[in-house]
Amino acid sequence: MQLLTAIRRTPLLWLLVFVPLVLALERLRPEAHTALFVLSILAIVPLAALLSMATESVAAKTGDTIGGLLNATLGNLTELVIALAALGAGEYTLVKASIAGAIVTNSLFMLGGSFLLGGLKYHVQEFNRSTARLQAGLLFLATVALLIPSAISRADATPEALFTEKLSIGLSVLLMLAYALGLVFSLKTHREFFGSAAHAVEEEEPWPIGVAVATLVVVTVLVALVSEVFVASVQDAALALGMTQAFVGFIVVALVGAAAEIASAFSGARKNRLDLSVGIALGSAAQIALFVAPMLVLLSYVVGPAPMSLQLWPGAVTMIVIATLTAALVTTSGRSAWFIGVLVLVVYATLALTLYLLPPPTG
Amino acid sequence: MQLLTAIRRTPLLWLLVFVPLVLALERLRPEAHTALFVLSILAIVPLAALLSMATESVAAKTGDTIGGLLNATLGNLTELVIALAALGAGEYTLVKASIAGAIVTNSLFMLGGSFLLGGLKYHVQEFNRSTARLQAGLLFLATVALLIPSAISRADATPEALFTEKLSIGLSVLLMLAYALGLVFSLKTHREFFGSAAHAVEEEEPWPIGVAVATLVVVTVLVALVSEVFVASVQDAALALGMTQAFVGFIVVALVGAAAEIASAFSGARKNRLDLSVGIALGSAAQIALFVAPMLVLLSYVVGPAPMSLQLWPGAVTMIVIATLTAALVTTSGRSAWFIGVLVLVVYATLALTLYLLPPPTG
Amino acid sequence: MQLLTAIRRTPLLWLLVFVPLVLALERLRPEAHTALFVLSILAIVPLAALLSMATESVAAKTGDTIGGLLNATLGNLTELVIALAALGAGEYTLVKASIAGAIVTNSLFMLGGSFLLGGLKYHVQEFNRSTARLQAGLLFLATVALLIPSAISRADATPEALFTEKLSIGLSVLLMLAYALGLVFSLKTHREFFGSAAHAVEEEEPWPIGVAVATLVVVTVLVALVSEVFVASVQDAALALGMTQAFVGFIVVALVGAAAEIASAFSGARKNRLDLSVGIALGSAAQIALFVAPMLVLLSYVVGPAPMSLQLWPGAVTMIVIATLTAALVTTSGRSAWFIGVLVLVVYATLALTLYLLPPPTG
Repeated sequence: MQLLTAIRRTPLLWLLVFVPLVLALERLRPEAHTALFVLSILAIVPLAALLSMATESVAAKTGDTIGGLLNATLGNLTELVIALAALGAGEYTLVKASIAGAIVTNSLFMLGGSFLLGGLKYHVQEFNRSTARLQAGLLFLATVALLIPSAISRADATPEALFTEKLSIGLSVLLMLAYALGLVFSLKTHREFFGSAAHAVEEEEPWPIGVAVATLVVVTVLVALVSEVFVASVQDAALALGMTQAFVGFIVVALVGAAAEIASAFSGARKNRLDLSVGIALGSAAQIALFVAPMLVLLSYVVGPAPMSLQLWPGAVTMIVIATLTAALVTTSGRSAWFIGVLVLVVYATLALTLYLLPPPTG
Repeated sequence: MQLLTAIRRTPLLWLLVFVPLVLALERLRPEAHTALFVLSILAIVPLAALLSMATESVAAKTGDTIGGLLNATLGNLTELVIALAALGAGEYTLVKASIAGAIVTNSLFMLGGSFLLGGLKYHVQEFNRSTARLQAGLLFLATVALLIPSAISRADATPEALFTEKLSIGLSVLLMLAYALGLVFSLKTHREFFGSAAHAVEEEEPWPIGVAVATLVVVTVLVALVSEVFVASVQDAALALGMTQAFVGFIVVALVGAAAEIASAFSGARKNRLDLSVGIALGSAAQIALFVAPMLVLLSYVVGPAPMSLQLWPGAVTMIVIATLTAALVTTSGRSAWFIGVLVLVVYATLALTLYLLPPPTG
Repeated sequence: MQLLTAIRRTPLLWLLVFVPLVLALERLRPEAHTALFVLSILAIVPLAALLSMATESVAAKTGDTIGGLLNATLGNLTELVIALAALGAGEYTLVKASIAGAIVTNSLFMLGGSFLLGGLKYHVQEFNRSTARLQAGLLFLATVALLIPSAISRADATPEALFTEKLSIGLSVLLMLAYALGLVFSLKTHREFFGSAAHAVEEEEPWPIGVAVATLVVVTVLVALVSEVFVASVQDAALALGMTQAFVGFIVVALVGAAAEIASAFSGARKNRLDLSVGIALGSAAQIALFVAPMLVLLSYVVGPAPMSLQLWPGAVTMIVIATLTAALVTTSGRSAWFIGVLVLVVYATLALTLYLLPPPTG
């Protein structure tokens, strides 16, 4: 069976053993917050990898357009499911931190790591400059649109609840419309700019469609279950480990949720296929801004205890702006070397250090 | 007569019928604010178009250098006349909102619309990258110079009146000096980078110089008259229509004042001459920052009830920075497709939505 | 003797006469603050030039790698010595203003002046676009890393002393690590991108190693002595001359400290070797951010009366961001003309004017 072959071949998937462990522990000792926190992280990583493989397989079977659509929509499924669990528990700071963190992790850690790992093997790496610029442009515009309300109302200091709520809904609709048009653009009218990156990751035989769909469903349910354990334990565990909730959401959740994509991006860089790495990093960050974030705002009316706004705390706005500007600047030249990767990672480390040391934000 | 031919050929000019209408209504029912507001907008649009045609004709007759000078100086005449009327009435929020709005409208709405309209007709459009970069650079530097006092004193929270006033005068002189040097640069020493765009708009026979100059004078007077009606009615009309004064200045006045240029830019894009559209959009935005804004500050000592500073409210600073960064990023690659236009317009729509929903700023 | 030849040939070095003058005056009339202030400035300029010549000579004798290392480390020795004197006197506002000012002066005044002076002689000047982009990228990332704590904690308004201190140390270590890796990058693994700029300045015969080393030591001591006079007089002199301490640090100290490099950059531009000018300007600014600033923070534990943080006042953050964005934008096209220089200088003049007029910051 393909699934078992995949597990045997990919050491990352051996972590799947933590899935039953964490679910069992949660039954037996629900008060062991720190242990549950660590185990749930270890369990989510292989589930995210499986999810990504299954999505690829379904996409490969359903033809270019629908496949691309699936890839684009389910690519950040792990992030979405974790955030939904946090949304249901009313942990809005965690949700917002994980949205901001996912954008920053994709555009700094994933990109910087790819440049560094690729650069250690190759002297100078070239990648398609105009595609990268197009993608960096999309990412910049996507995050700008996402951040405008926070930036404007921060500046004018008028965070009246009703206005923020109306604005968040209006904006979410605008962003999702832009996302839908973006799919038409990248999958239909201008697919030649994006096509190559989407399918090149998967070099193995795709799974049979039945296995793939079943995996997709079962694993999504498992991610949801583990995420609930994770969200329930995060508050106390963070306290015990001396981390703020913002740090956990921004760094830990974002790294865990993006583990599968990070692996793909890094492996692309080691194969001197930096186009692939840049495409995954920038595309995934843009998807968070245009699709996941507004989706969560709209879902908060159904799932959460109260509506969630798109308003981020000022520090998060600054970090996202820094991250996307850095990504835009660094990809504009179409070439990279290891030290560029180092500097991008230094920016990421600085953000992480700041979040780790600073007292938690309010809101 | 050429003027009548122009009117017959250009449906936009049929709106001229609203000019006598609004002036008559103002006599008869000066309290009908909302009607006067709507009619004066409808009347300014064709006047702005006529003004632009007349300027082009005079410019065509007077040779390259003087013609270019005229085009550059009178290109934003409509905006200047409207702002002067608001200045005379002491409506400083409206003046400042219309300055900020003109920059944002030119660099987002005009550029995004051109990319979208051009992109719907052509798969990928190319434009001269180095000219666009030069112009985007000028625009960026111009707006940065304009915004520095707002940015610095916002950050340091010391808006003492005397300092702001001295700074505004000193800065206005600096900006206008830069503008004058910019004219030397674009009309004399380096005209080959700018030349093509200036005259290519007008493809019809230019009018006789007498007709053109007379039109220029008469229409400017008419714009001034209608602008006064507009400014007198805007406060109450905005209230009645549920719009803030910032929204009116930022969005409505800016769109009305730039109507003629918007038409030229869009028509250039439809003819696959994106160089033209980009040149109009970026050039006009830079002119507002380097010439119109400091001119209004200096004129406020003559015309207004009190001196006006260059200090913008923080939200406006953020919006202008976003707009010029977006314009710089989007033109850096020298190519465009319809979705780039969509994203630029989404950024614009987000700004408009935010301004529409947020309570009015103070100052 | 080479030293005397150099003095005879370089009119700038005639200013050396002010060195004994200022030291004598300090003995005789220590209360003549304004005179001491002016004389110490006049004395530091030629000392900085001598320091730069001696460093070049030592570097030329010690081979590429060690020479490059020396150039990179001692290139901003004057700034470092002045800042150390201020650090010892506990004048932290002056230290921070001079760090921020050095970055801004290098990336605006030096770059803009080079573009203007070069552009007055040559119609359009080309420089190596990819090298410039690489250097602008390094500068951007370096300043971003430097500014993150200020930006984040400004936004979140939690300047608790302990966090700021921990963060400053952690960050200083990160930055210096990045600097060390940057030396490996520019002197070993990728020296072909940087090599040309380093040695091209010096066209004269290098001095004998003994003379050069002796000059280096003696002049450093003299700079230290004069800097102490300067720092002791600056407070009262600034008051007498109507300047704020921020203005003195930001503009005066930065210009004085960088005088030698400014002369090299301008002379490169006049010889149509803009690569050289851009390399000096951007490289030196990056060095301040990655090496001088964190070094001063760490040294403040040894030298100063109390630990100094990396926290800059918000206006300085804004200025540095504006300066590095401007430098990045302006060098991205790989070509320049005189008006680009004018605009960059206008941005610089605006910053200087704002600092001159605004009341002093606190902190």
